[in-house]
Amino acid sequence: MSRSDPTRVAAGRPALPLTVDYAPGVVRLLDQTLLPEAVVVHECSTVDELVDAIVRLRVRGAPAIGVAAAHGAALAADLALGAGCAAQALAEQVDAALAALRRARPTAVNLGWAVDRMRAVLQREAPSALAAAGTAGAPALRDALAREAALIQQEDQRLCRELGAHGAELLPDPCVVMTHCNAGVLATAGIGTALGVIYAAAESGKRVEVIVRETRPLLQGARLTAWELSRNGLPVTLICDDAAGSILRSRRVDAVLVGADRIAANGDVANKIGTYALAVLAARHGVPFYVAAPYSTLDLSLPDGSTIPIEERSPAEVSAHWAQASGSSGVRVANPAFDVTPAELVTAIITERGVLRAPLGEAIRRHYGRLPPSG
Amino acid sequence: MSRSDPTRVAAGRPALPLTVDYAPGVVRLLDQTLLPEAVVVHECSTVDELVDAIVRLRVRGAPAIGVAAAHGAALAADLALGAGCAAQALAEQVDAALAALRRARPTAVNLGWAVDRMRAVLQREAPSALAAAGTAGAPALRDALAREAALIQQEDQRLCRELGAHGAELLPDPCVVMTHCNAGVLATAGIGTALGVIYAAAESGKRVEVIVRETRPLLQGARLTAWELSRNGLPVTLICDDAAGSILRSRRVDAVLVGADRIAANGDVANKIGTYALAVLAARHGVPFYVAAPYSTLDLSLPDGSTIPIEERSPAEVSAHWAQASGSSGVRVANPAFDVTPAELVTAIITERGVLRAPLGEAIRRHYGRLPPSG
Repeated sequence: MSRSDPTRVAAGRPALPLTVDYAPGVVRLLDQTLLPEAVVVHECSTVDELVDAIVRLRVRGAPAIGVAAAHGAALAADLALGAGCAAQALAEQVDAALAALRRARPTAVNLGWAVDRMRAVLQREAPSALAAAGTAGAPALRDALAREAALIQQEDQRLCRELGAHGAELLPDPCVVMTHCNAGVLATAGIGTALGVIYAAAESGKRVEVIVRETRPLLQGARLTAWELSRNGLPVTLICDDAAGSILRSRRVDAVLVGADRIAANGDVANKIGTYALAVLAARHGVPFYVAAPYSTLDLSLPDGSTIPIEERSPAEVSAHWAQASGSSGVRVANPAFDVTPAELVTAIITERGVLRAPLGEAIRRHYGRLPPSG
Repeated sequence: MSRSDPTRVAAGRPALPLTVDYAPGVVRLLDQTLLPEAVVVHECSTVDELVDAIVRLRVRGAPAIGVAAAHGAALAADLALGAGCAAQALAEQVDAALAALRRARPTAVNLGWAVDRMRAVLQREAPSALAAAGTAGAPALRDALAREAALIQQEDQRLCRELGAHGAELLPDPCVVMTHCNAGVLATAGIGTALGVIYAAAESGKRVEVIVRETRPLLQGARLTAWELSRNGLPVTLICDDAAGSILRSRRVDAVLVGADRIAANGDVANKIGTYALAVLAARHGVPFYVAAPYSTLDLSLPDGSTIPIEERSPAEVSAHWAQASGSSGVRVANPAFDVTPAELVTAIITERGVLRAPLGEAIRRHYGRLPPSG
C-alpha cells in the first residue's frame, strides 16, 4: 500500500486521479457525477466553472469541497495574475471568488471554513503585497494563496490517516460495519473519514465487511462507496436505505460509521439525509453509532444543530424516473439533502485527535476549544 | 363520487380499469409495472401468465394478489372446460393452478388465504360434480369457482369501504398523514386499505395532506401512491424514504398509515421493506402508527412475526442504474422485499370490524378468533 497516494488504498489496485487537485490555472476534479460508469477528470479553469461543479456535485463530500474552494482562491489569483492585475485587483478578485464559492452549498461548514482560511491569508498578506515595490506584490499574494491551498489539501490527507488510525481501534476483528453516503477517498483529499477508518482497520489486518446504504436520491452509497470499497478489495453488501432496519434486526452489525458535514458545539451532527434515521435504528439495536470527521467539520459558533442550514435540492433529483406522469398532477417533492442527528444518538466522534465520547459537548470543548486558525 | 366504481375515488375523475378483474377466459390486470407512464390492461389467458404477472408485480398489493389468485382458479376451470375436460380433470387442473399460484410470492398471506378458500370450494363442490350425470359436473364446478372468486373480489371492495370508514375517524381535520409503498386502489379490489382510510376521511370532508415515501427499490410510493392520490385530488408531498426522519422531526405529522402483507397472531406486521424503520421513527416522535388491513391479512397460525417468510427479490431491482460498473467488482446486493414491525410499535390495526388497539394479540383473538371460512 502506497501511503503517498491517497486514492490507492489497497496494494495492487490501480491509482485513480485525485478527488481534487490543482495545477496553475486549473482545478481538477474527479467527476463524481459520472462515476462509476466513467472515470473522467473535470477541469475548471474559471471560478464560475468551479462553483458550478460544486453545485452540481462533480466534487462533493465536506472535506473535499473545502479543499476545492481553497484551490478556487488560488485559481482566482492565477487568473488575475495572468490578466496582468496588480495586487489590489488580484485581492479583490480573490475576495469575490471566495464569496461565490462560499455560496455554492450551505450545509458543509468545511466550505466556509476553507473560505475563511483563505481570506485570512488574503488579509494577512495583502498589506505587504500592496506596499511592495513595482509589480512584485501580486505574485507574492498569489504564491501565499497557492501555498495555503496546498497546505489545506496536505493537512486533509494527513488528518484522514490520523483519524483512520484512531477509529480503526474501535472496530473488532472480524467486523461488519454499516455506512451511509460516501465519506471516503471521494469525499476528501485523503483516504476518507468514515471509510478511512475502514481502510485503516483493513490495513491493520482486520477483516471488515461493509454494508453500504445506497443513499437516495443521488445514490452516493451505490455509485461511489460500493465502488471505491470494492475497488480496494473490501467485501461490500449494498442495500436500499430502508433495508437498514431489517438488517440491524436480523444480523450482527458491529458499528455504524458515517461522516459529517457540520458538527455543532454540543455534538449534534448534520450529515447526508438518512443519517438521523440510521442513528435512531442503531440506538434501538444497541449498535455503536460513530461519526468520523476532522476539525474543519466543527462549527463552534452553533450551540446545537437546530440552526444548521439544511440544503434543499432540486425535486428533479428525486423524480427523474417518473416525473412525466406524477410530476404534472399535483405532486410536490421535498428533497432535503441533509438531516441533523442529535448528539444523544452519537456514541462517539472519531477525529484526528482521538475519539470523543459523551458528553460530546464537553469533549469537543476540551479538544477543540480554540480552532486553528480561524474556526 | 361513485361508490360502484372503486377506481374513481373523487368525483369528476376519470375511471380507471379495475386493478384486477375477470372475464371468462381472461384475468385482467392493470399493469402496475408500466404506471404511471402508461395505463395498460395486461390480459392473462393462462395460469402461467398470471403466475408470471404476480411474480413480476404487474399486480401487487396483498389483497389484490389474493383476488387475482382466486380468479386464477376460475381461469383454470374455464380453460379446462373449454378443453372439454370432465369434472375430475377440471378439479385436478384447478388444484395444480392453485398450487402454482400459491408459490408465486411468499410473504403476503392473502395469496395463500385466497388459494385455501378456492380449494375449499373445490373440496366442497367436487363430490357432487363428480357424481353428476353426464357432463353437467364440470360446468357446475366451474360456476362455483367463478362465483367464489367474484365474491372474494366483492368482499374486498366492501371491506375496504368499511375499513376506511373506521380508520377515517382516527384522523383529525386537517391532518398530515405519512404513508409507505402502496396500499390503495392499486393494491386491492376496492379503495385500498391505508389509502382507503385517507379517501374515506377526505370524502367525509376532512382536509388530508399526504406525505408519500418513494419506497425503494421499485418506487411504489412515487409511481403508484403519489399518482393515485393526486389523481383523486389529494395534496401529495413525495419524499425519499430516508427523509422521513427529518420530516417527522421538523414538522407536524398526525399519523403514519400503512398496509400489511401478513399479521401474526400477536400483532407483528410484515409489510414492505422500510415499514419497520418508519415505525421506529414514528414511535420516537410520538406519532401514531396505524396498520390498515382486512381479515385476510391475519395469519393466526403464526404466534409472532419471527417466522413470516420474507421474500428476497432480485438484486437487479436495486442495481439497475449502476450495475455495469459496481456489480462486476465484488458488490453483493441484499434486497429483502419486506420487513417485520413488532406489535409494540403498532398503535392500532384498522380493520373492517373496527380499530384494534394494544394489547393487539388479545384484540385480534377477540375479533378474529375464528376466521371465515378457512383462515
